Amino acid sequence: MGTLGKVYLVGAGPGDQKLLTLRGKECLEQADVVLYDYLANPVLLDHVPAHAERIYVGRRGRGRYQDQDEVNRLIIEKAREGKVVVRLKGGDPFVFGRGGEEAEAIAAAGLPFEVVPGVTSAVAVPAYAGIPVTHRTLASTVAFVTGHEDPTKEEAAREWPRLATANGTLVFLMGMKNLPAIVEHLVSEGKSQETPVALIRWGTRSGQRTVVGTLRDIVGKAEEAEMDPPTVIVVGDVVRLRTQLNWFETRPLFGKRILVTRAQEQARELSALLAEQGAEPVECPTIRLVPPESWRELDEAIAELRRYHWVIFTSVNGVRPFMERLRQRGQDARALAGLRLCCIGPRTAQELSAYGLRADLVPSDYQAEGVIDAMKTAGVAGQRVLIPRDAVA
Amino acid sequence: MGTLGKVYLVGAGPGDQKLLTLRGKECLEQADVVLYDYLANPVLLDHVPAHAERIYVGRRGRGRYQDQDEVNRLIIEKAREGKVVVRLKGGDPFVFGRGGEEAEAIAAAGLPFEVVPGVTSAVAVPAYAGIPVTHRTLASTVAFVTGHEDPTKEEAAREWPRLATANGTLVFLMGMKNLPAIVEHLVSEGKSQETPVALIRWGTRSGQRTVVGTLRDIVGKAEEAEMDPPTVIVVGDVVRLRTQLNWFETRPLFGKRILVTRAQEQARELSALLAEQGAEPVECPTIRLVPPESWRELDEAIAELRRYHWVIFTSVNGVRPFMERLRQRGQDARALAGLRLCCIGPRTAQELSAYGLRADLVPSDYQAEGVIDAMKTAGVAGQRVLIPRDAVA
Repeated sequence: MGTLGKVYLVGAGPGDQKLLTLRGKECLEQADVVLYDYLANPVLLDHVPAHAERIYVGRRGRGRYQDQDEVNRLIIEKAREGKVVVRLKGGDPFVFGRGGEEAEAIAAAGLPFEVVPGVTSAVAVPAYAGIPVTHRTLASTVAFVTGHEDPTKEEAAREWPRLATANGTLVFLMGMKNLPAIVEHLVSEGKSQETPVALIRWGTRSGQRTVVGTLRDIVGKAEEAEMDPPTVIVVGDVVRLRTQLNWFETRPLFGKRILVTRAQEQARELSALLAEQGAEPVECPTIRLVPPESWRELDEAIAELRRYHWVIFTSVNGVRPFMERLRQRGQDARALAGLRLCCIGPRTAQELSAYGLRADLVPSDYQAEGVIDAMKTAGVAGQRVLIPRDAVA
Repeated sequence: MGTLGKVYLVGAGPGDQKLLTLRGKECLEQADVVLYDYLANPVLLDHVPAHAERIYVGRRGRGRYQDQDEVNRLIIEKAREGKVVVRLKGGDPFVFGRGGEEAEAIAAAGLPFEVVPGVTSAVAVPAYAGIPVTHRTLASTVAFVTGHEDPTKEEAAREWPRLATANGTLVFLMGMKNLPAIVEHLVSEGKSQETPVALIRWGTRSGQRTVVGTLRDIVGKAEEAEMDPPTVIVVGDVVRLRTQLNWFETRPLFGKRILVTRAQEQARELSALLAEQGAEPVECPTIRLVPPESWRELDEAIAELRRYHWVIFTSVNGVRPFMERLRQRGQDARALAGLRLCCIGPRTAQELSAYGLRADLVPSDYQAEGVIDAMKTAGVAGQRVLIPRDAVA
């Protein structure tokens, strides 16, 4: 992205890591510095290159948020060093969360910046609870309100009559601590006690929890269910649609965080299948592919390749280290001329084909006996066989 | 995604194709059927597999929108055939646009579905015009309003006193045709004539156009500038921030649609660089890489490879067809044993390395004379040289 410093204000989306935008991912991949807070799913930092600096600027535990001036100062300082700075913000940068102020500070400093909008929690969190925030017959407007402010504050107070008479949907972000005051103000300004309310905690993540009630009973229900922040509050008739549209919490593996212990390079496919069924796959490889402690054995074999007749690749993990080592030794696939290549399993053969090489033999039975039978048939008697070891630790 | 039919209600985002979510892209890549309308950027259909059925369900020209019941019927029919159906909707599926009704119909039909929220135009379009819809000191609420409805309709009319007295930001979607009525209602219910207004047409795309005024003069300005749908209307003090935060329209190549004529396989990198500077790259390859009409010459050379001493790859486009043909003939990189490989340019060498092969010679001068000099030095006298032709049509 050029050699000049630049700032990207990136919306991280509501939590589900797949709700990041393509542009947001690109920015993270090119970041030198990332400043993130507690509403942005930390899994998104996996997109950031290893060399990049990661700076947490959210609140510490249950404590106060970091001073906004300090965050602005950090962003500007890093960009002035010529770095690509990503300010990763939960949801959308311009829906509360003070992205506007950050943009003003960056612009005032004369630095180039780009805004990368995100999927806002105000829409997506209700959607994951089966609640469309607008609906042709139920709500032709939707208002987002920051519940962060003290509702008795004079300025905020002026909003209540207007909010209470709204026919549309109201979505309060960051309002959980003020829930009793919010409910009280809506009712005292005229909103019906029977108005449906939904509270959705950690929406779009596997830990999502939803509590539904009315303005009359929601405060009690919230206490009972111990609903703490971060929780989105939805007020309006659209909440009723949840009984039909609750697609996310009803999936077979909903709420399950599942450890995927396969090696990182191989976990992706399994993770996608689990996510499709509603689980949150957590990749935690118990196998890590590492180079062998010594290349001596392999180097000796490479030096004498001409004396071998077969190479057997026993898994996908053996192919790359072998071909890479060949390359590092100044050789390439041509060095395998005259050798026959056997792959255990079609995936291994596929991996080999990425190096321009066709497996001459792919036994249909993957057990040792099956391989031996297949090779007998292919004619292995009296031949020298090289079996590169998988690089597994 | 399993063999059962399933429906994905996918938000396409506001127009910029990079504002699609990662999940949205995954769904498109697995679609058997895509139903899309005119607000979803058609470029997104590039993610859809070639075999998939594409059904346009938006309005025809300036005519009426397709009947909603008909759209619902189509979605259900296709899903019942066991297909993966993607309903691609501009912006977010649940912010107007009748996604809620579609979800109800799908749920009523007993079909599984997933909602993939998108970046809503109501937030992102103002952001691309330099307008944050919320701001700590200027707007602690934001309301989205469908401007589609007749503002004199009794039900809609009840909203106006409330909307007019709002201190927060108002965003009207699909309201351009009703602009005069919207302005009149806001003013007659008490909103100041001096309230800033922005109109943003085709927001987030290279054709984005913004007109700024106040409730007093915006109707005249809109006529003058010929602002037609699709245009987002923003009303509120946050519009003033545009003077400092207008990052998108001020980029060096803003508003330029640039034809990228490189072959499709090679256009990506250039397109990304252009987009970074604000252009909208339109990939329109004037060169298409196709196989030669006859493989005879190459096949003859492959059959006699042993009689050659050098292979010269003159461009990246020569590498793949050669290696693929080798594979189709039951051979692979091993067949090049004993031959020396020359690549014109480091990119060609890189392409070759993807096939497990190291270039033995990469002349630093790409002109024919340079290549010849380099090969003279490497020792080419009296040797047979094979130069596979680029597969260019």
